[in-house]
Parts: sequence; C-alpha cells; structure tokens
Amino acid sequence: MRARKGYLRHIHSCNPPVRELFVPWFIDDQLVGWLRPWLVDKLREHSTVFKIREKRIDLSARLEGFSDRSAVLAEIVEWLAGQQLITAPMGELYPVTPAGRQAALCVMDRAAAAYFGVRAFGQHLNGFVHKKDGLYMWLGRRARDRLIYPGSLDNMVAGGLPWGVSLEENLHKECMEEAGLPENVARQAVPVGLVSYNRVTERGYRPDILYCYDLELSPGFQPQNTDGEVESFVLLPVEEVARLVRETDEFKLNCNLVVIDFLLRHGYIEPQDDEYLELVIGLRSPLSAGLTVSR
Amino acid sequence: MRARKGYLRHIHSCNPPVRELFVPWFIDDQLVGWLRPWLVDKLREHSTVFKIREKRIDLSARLEGFSDRSAVLAEIVEWLAGQQLITAPMGELYPVTPAGRQAALCVMDRAAAAYFGVRAFGQHLNGFVHKKDGLYMWLGRRARDRLIYPGSLDNMVAGGLPWGVSLEENLHKECMEEAGLPENVARQAVPVGLVSYNRVTERGYRPDILYCYDLELSPGFQPQNTDGEVESFVLLPVEEVARLVRETDEFKLNCNLVVIDFLLRHGYIEPQDDEYLELVIGLRSPLSAGLTVSR
Repeated sequence: MRARKGYLRHIHSCNPPVRELFVPWFIDDQLVGWLRPWLVDKLREHSTVFKIREKRIDLSARLEGFSDRSAVLAEIVEWLAGQQLITAPMGELYPVTPAGRQAALCVMDRAAAAYFGVRAFGQHLNGFVHKKDGLYMWLGRRARDRLIYPGSLDNMVAGGLPWGVSLEENLHKECMEEAGLPENVARQAVPVGLVSYNRVTERGYRPDILYCYDLELSPGFQPQNTDGEVESFVLLPVEEVARLVRETDEFKLNCNLVVIDFLLRHGYIEPQDDEYLELVIGLRSPLSAGLTVSR
Repeated sequence: MRARKGYLRHIHSCNPPVRELFVPWFIDDQLVGWLRPWLVDKLREHSTVFKIREKRIDLSARLEGFSDRSAVLAEIVEWLAGQQLITAPMGELYPVTPAGRQAALCVMDRAAAAYFGVRAFGQHLNGFVHKKDGLYMWLGRRARDRLIYPGSLDNMVAGGLPWGVSLEENLHKECMEEAGLPENVARQAVPVGLVSYNRVTERGYRPDILYCYDLELSPGFQPQNTDGEVESFVLLPVEEVARLVRETDEFKLNCNLVVIDFLLRHGYIEPQDDEYLELVIGLRSPLSAGLTVSR
C-alpha cells in the first residue's frame, strides 16, 4: 500500500521491490551490473566474451585492461542494437564500475548500460537564496518537448555525468547551460553528499547515484536557461517546495529525493518526524539492495 | 584487512562483520532486537512471557499494550540481573522499537537493552565557528575518569537519549550540562540528519542511531563544562579536525562518524574521493545489516 502523500512514497517509488530475476554481472570477480535472463541467454552466442554459469555472467578473464574490455563491449552493443534487442547507442559513454566512477573497469554506451544494470551517475544542484523572510529555492520547469517528464519541476541544475569529464567541469558546464550561471558563481557550489536508489524499468535494473550540491545565490540573481531544456525558473519559499514534494507529483521523480535530502540537511524535516529514520537511511540505498548475489 | 588511516576504517569499526548467530526478537510480529542464543535459552524458563521457536523469539501475544509489556520486561531484567547474567539495571529506560523512537512498543532498562539488541538513540552536536581564515570546530576532551574512552576527543555536545524526554528538551539539557550553552543559543542548533551503525560487543548486537545537529557559534563564545564529563574544549581548524579523524584514533569511536558526516555535508570531503560512495552510504547502515531474519 503506497501513501498518496508524504515524502517517503518518492523513496519507495525510486526503489521498487524487485519481483523478477536479475543475473549479476562480474568483471574481474567484481560486481558491476545486473541483467535480465533473456539478455544473458542472448549473450551465450558470444562465448569468447562472456562466461555464463547458472547464476552469474562474467566478462571473460581473457579480456584484460580498460580499453580492450571497452572495445569488445562496444561491438556487443552494436550487435545487440543491430538486432533491435536494445535501443540504439547514444554515443555517450558510461563507466562500468563496482564502486565509484574512479574505479571503472571499462566503459559502455549509455543506452546499453541501462540493459546491463550498471550504475549511472548524475549531478543535481540546489540553488537557494536567503531572504529576510526565510529561505527560498530556485526550481526549474522542464521544457515541454523533453522526452521524459516534460513540464515537470526539476532541481535548479541537474544532469547526467558522462565519462571522461571531471565532476567539477561537468557541473560548471551544466550550471552554464541550464541556468546561465557563470563559472565564478558555479565554483561556490558545495558538494554535500549523494542520494542513491535502484529502479526497475522496462530496460532493466537501474542503480543511480546523484551527487548533490548546494549553492547559495544572491537575492538579485536570475537564472537563465541557454540550452532549451528548461522552460522557466521559479523562486519559491522552502516551505512551499516541501509541500510540493509532500503533496504533489509535480517534480521529476528523482528530483524529489534531492529536495528531501536538502530539507533533512537544513532542518526543514525534523527528527521528531515519524518517518525520519526511514527517510535518512532510505535516501542511500546500497547497490543491489533487494537482489541476491550468488558466487 | 583494515587500513590504519583514512575515514572509512571508522565506519568499518562501527559495523563489524557479524560472525556469530543472533536470534531476532519480535513484538507484535515487528522486529525490535537481536539476542545471543544463550539468552534465548535462558528465557525458555519464562514460557508465558516469550514464545521461542527455532529461529526467533517473540514476546507473548498475550502481553498487549505498552505498560503491560514494559512491566513484564522489567521483571525479566531484574531476574536476569539477580543471577548476574546481565549487568545491573541503570534506572534509565530505552524504547524498544521496530523503527524510530516514536514507534516504541514498550521500554526496557538501558543496561539490559544492550543484551537484547534493541536500538539505542543519541544526539551529537557539531559546534563550529566561521573565522576570517576558515571554519573551526569546537571539540570536547572527555574527562579522565569516564568509564569509556577517558581522555578521548568528543563532539562538542553528545549524549544518550533516554525515554520520556523530547529530542529538543534533551538536546538543550545536554548543551547546558556539557558545554554551558544557554537555551537561547542551543535553540539555534539545526537538525541535519543522522548516522546509524550496528556494533557487536561483549553484551550483544548494538544498533545505534545518532541524531546529528549543527550549531554555528559566535567567535567570542567559550564553551564551559558544568557536569564534569568534559575535561576541556579546544577550537581547531576543520582541516585539522579532518586530519585527526583520518590519521589518529584520538576520537571516541562513534564521534568519528559524526565528524565525517559534517565534513561530507560541508564539502570538506569531495565526491572525487575514491571512498565517497562508501562513506555516504556507509554512514547509514540499516538495522539488522549483516543479519538474517527468518520468519
């Protein structure tokens, strides 16, 4: 039974119970992803690339090194996409990693990564302003022509984190493109942690990590979108932002979690709240939560 | 293999691998604690109070209501302590709860709670000062006559959270006793989340929740201990506090986690750090992590 209101329902929506089988994928005996059984079966046709046992799939130990692995995976992705078993490559590479981005063992195309259950990384920024009557947050309204969540509310700046670019560089780029924030302002963004969750979607198991940032802006600043992804910006009292999260589904789903984390860190959700424990702990789901690894 | 330096080792020390059997304890079919098998065996002598099956122990369903359950548990605790099977009651009550404090199904003595693996709650406060040359943190040095961690560094204010007192009330009391903070200053403390961990000690499985608070103080303020628990206070640059956590064992073990959480929330540990994911996720261990519940 899911509540129609409250903060916790968004955490539950981002971490649905896993009611089907996913097969763990290992590289160098390290867990890097989860595949649906149909995909594992298909990959049996490439027995030199994947070693498939009853309850796990391993990238062949013969494939050593970052670039060899990445090259072979790129061929596999082309082959799968050519048969229209997965969506076409997006030309953007994602790290395939057992831990953080830095620990990547190879890369694979973003579109394919979703089928292989590898972790995706993003960066979300809370822009806020201290006014005499309290704290205000800047929110973006997503453009109506966006593929996912058109017209929904969004964090002030939010974007995926591709391979080959530093966290800082990517954040500054997104700050400029999404909100017209010059680099000297974007540099003042403070990294404040992360939220993590594991969705189950049409394409597969989708573990996500969103690095969170806080940026205090001067009352005079007006964000300005430059890449067409944001229709408009609105500055709302934090209490109203909290209400929108609690009582509506106006936000793109995962942005709710970033706002909830902000509210928790700034004392706008208090430890007296019945759901406090579940909220703080629930915002950081470990990779593979709800799944069983057989070794 | 444990590293001798770094932040992560403290999280590992607070969450050791569970290498022995603990039996889950249920009240009203809700998991509230974990007992060692010897204690479960002993409680067989009270078959009207506990229903014991192969892999679980339940408080008898005949015991309904908070006060009835608490009264019977108090008798059990006296009986166990009388045989010197557990340490003597401390006269301080802890909630027995499947979730937060508010969800308590009954209470039991603090000393006994440790053997029954019920969650303990505490409050820790980070006192900090903005100076021209950066952020400084106030730390306490524990009195030399304290039972645990004499002479170790501590958060500016830290204390257990007994039953029957509100979070706010207890925090204000601790602020006054430990650091001489008047209530009008203590009121400015901001709740910023919690850290949770599950230790395994001589007495039993010990899941802890520490509610964390930040309090910015004016540069002129000097904390003053009034209850004899703190020998002295020291104001250190945040970088030096971070170094003490990383490179030494000067802090009382769980206080390291509160400082690490502070460093993460204020951008002093950055997402480029190789251990960032493990740190942020590791600071919030779910209850029963590492244990298996049989129903």
